[in-house]
Amino acid sequence: MPDLDRMGVTEEALAQIARMPDPRQREITAAAIRHLHDFAREVELKPEEWLAGIGFLTAVGQACTPYRQEFILLSDVLGLSRLVNLMHDAEGREAAGTETSLLGPFFREQAPEFAAGESIAVHATGGEPLALFGQVTDAEGQPVAGAGIDIWQTDATGLYDLQANEPEVMDLRGRFRTDAAGRFDMRTVKPIGYSIPMDGPVGRLVRQQNRHGMRPAHIHILVQAPGYRELVTALYLGDDPHIDSDTVFGVSRSLVVTPRRGLPGAPEPDIAAIRYDFRLSRLAEGETGGRVGADPSRILPAAE
Amino acid sequence: MPDLDRMGVTEEALAQIARMPDPRQREITAAAIRHLHDFAREVELKPEEWLAGIGFLTAVGQACTPYRQEFILLSDVLGLSRLVNLMHDAEGREAAGTETSLLGPFFREQAPEFAAGESIAVHATGGEPLALFGQVTDAEGQPVAGAGIDIWQTDATGLYDLQANEPEVMDLRGRFRTDAAGRFDMRTVKPIGYSIPMDGPVGRLVRQQNRHGMRPAHIHILVQAPGYRELVTALYLGDDPHIDSDTVFGVSRSLVVTPRRGLPGAPEPDIAAIRYDFRLSRLAEGETGGRVGADPSRILPAAE
Repeated sequence: MPDLDRMGVTEEALAQIARMPDPRQREITAAAIRHLHDFAREVELKPEEWLAGIGFLTAVGQACTPYRQEFILLSDVLGLSRLVNLMHDAEGREAAGTETSLLGPFFREQAPEFAAGESIAVHATGGEPLALFGQVTDAEGQPVAGAGIDIWQTDATGLYDLQANEPEVMDLRGRFRTDAAGRFDMRTVKPIGYSIPMDGPVGRLVRQQNRHGMRPAHIHILVQAPGYRELVTALYLGDDPHIDSDTVFGVSRSLVVTPRRGLPGAPEPDIAAIRYDFRLSRLAEGETGGRVGADPSRILPAAE
Repeated sequence: MPDLDRMGVTEEALAQIARMPDPRQREITAAAIRHLHDFAREVELKPEEWLAGIGFLTAVGQACTPYRQEFILLSDVLGLSRLVNLMHDAEGREAAGTETSLLGPFFREQAPEFAAGESIAVHATGGEPLALFGQVTDAEGQPVAGAGIDIWQTDATGLYDLQANEPEVMDLRGRFRTDAAGRFDMRTVKPIGYSIPMDGPVGRLVRQQNRHGMRPAHIHILVQAPGYRELVTALYLGDDPHIDSDTVFGVSRSLVVTPRRGLPGAPEPDIAAIRYDFRLSRLAEGETGGRVGADPSRILPAAE
């Protein structure tokens, strides 16, 4: 029996997982144990601090519901989601493909389908009308016909449908399809920037960190077409005051847009419009295209 | 606006917490972010792996109840609890003080009081009778009178009261006091080794790691006396087959004991007995004595 010291306990923990059958799971678990222990040693973590951490993580887990994923939010505000996203992007995206952004906690499967020119603002009132049009192409600029485009966003008060309505109501989200030339034409209202949910443990953490907790106004986009890597991205409105200090580190320069009236090719010249062309990267052989983020209800454990 | 790369996102996350008012919280948060990002970069964490981690942590949080602290259990099986314990110990314990061990998830405040010679096995049936006697002293060997000693353990089937009974029933736990000479005399039954709770997400993890999930038989001890550091420890039965492979890394050589009949000074010569003397370290100036682990109900967030 070893008499463990502060380094020996790490060796012993690694020894106990040395027979994990799956090599990749073993690699991840071993790295997690090493970095967790390194962290605790570096700061000389005290029992009451450890206990506060246990209490915090417990609160995060218990704040999760079928409609709210507080652990994804925690990962977002710590920059981990964006880091995973960046690595995934660098590994698989063709250089000319559209940059990705965070899926976030508000994506929902099975959003209603809309025809070109229809607006996703069905229940929401107020907000400046906005057109979003353009083309989906491959990395060489060839049109991708029949691509599915999910968009979802806040209303003009900064709330998503899940926050503004009963959970069964879907609004300000929808699915469009590109035409034979890869073109799409979607209508919505201008979203506004918003605070991440501040009423839970992650919100309390962000306040304690003296951060504003704001995300700049944006429209989430998910583009899917057979043979292409799923594109999870978002367009950010350049005039938002928090465009340079997004709490979840989602903004990239190439995703910043400014709505304008009278754009060439705009479907309705008298409303503000954004033209954005999405370029899809081809799937690498054997790649299935993992998604950074997901519908919380798919992550939450089934009730016992 | 920076165009973040995989290193830059860490810098940006650290920049956003740079105005945290409390220096110690800032230090811990910054280290947590750095090590978390280092971990993700080292293993090139993939979106689906990230998502599996989110799902796992959510399940751990949701498995917590007022009577079960699954995050402490996770910390235990990863060796983190023991590491925090070892660092705390090294920092404050006088060299001659008794070594500490893990509090574990089954400690409860307000255990019933017992007089010397009484048994804590009130409801439990079966099991070999066992006496535990000895003396509580300071690090120089001077008796500590009136010290409170909490003991708690499994029954002869390897279950704690919280697992074997309705939650309001307390059994195989109790509080004794030392007499004027620092002596104590407690009666119980021989505990047996047991598996950590394997019906939750941490149990599934341990199985996936190809570990046995067993703890060697032990008796938990918590000694408290004014002016002394609270002693959280445990005595381990040396004949247990898992004495060298404790799933939560709690065993130290100095805490291994072997019950024997006819020990000198034993209160009843015809039952097996353990003699163990506990030595308390004096509190350092200003120290309040944090505890590694705690009653889950004190950690769980209040219901909304």
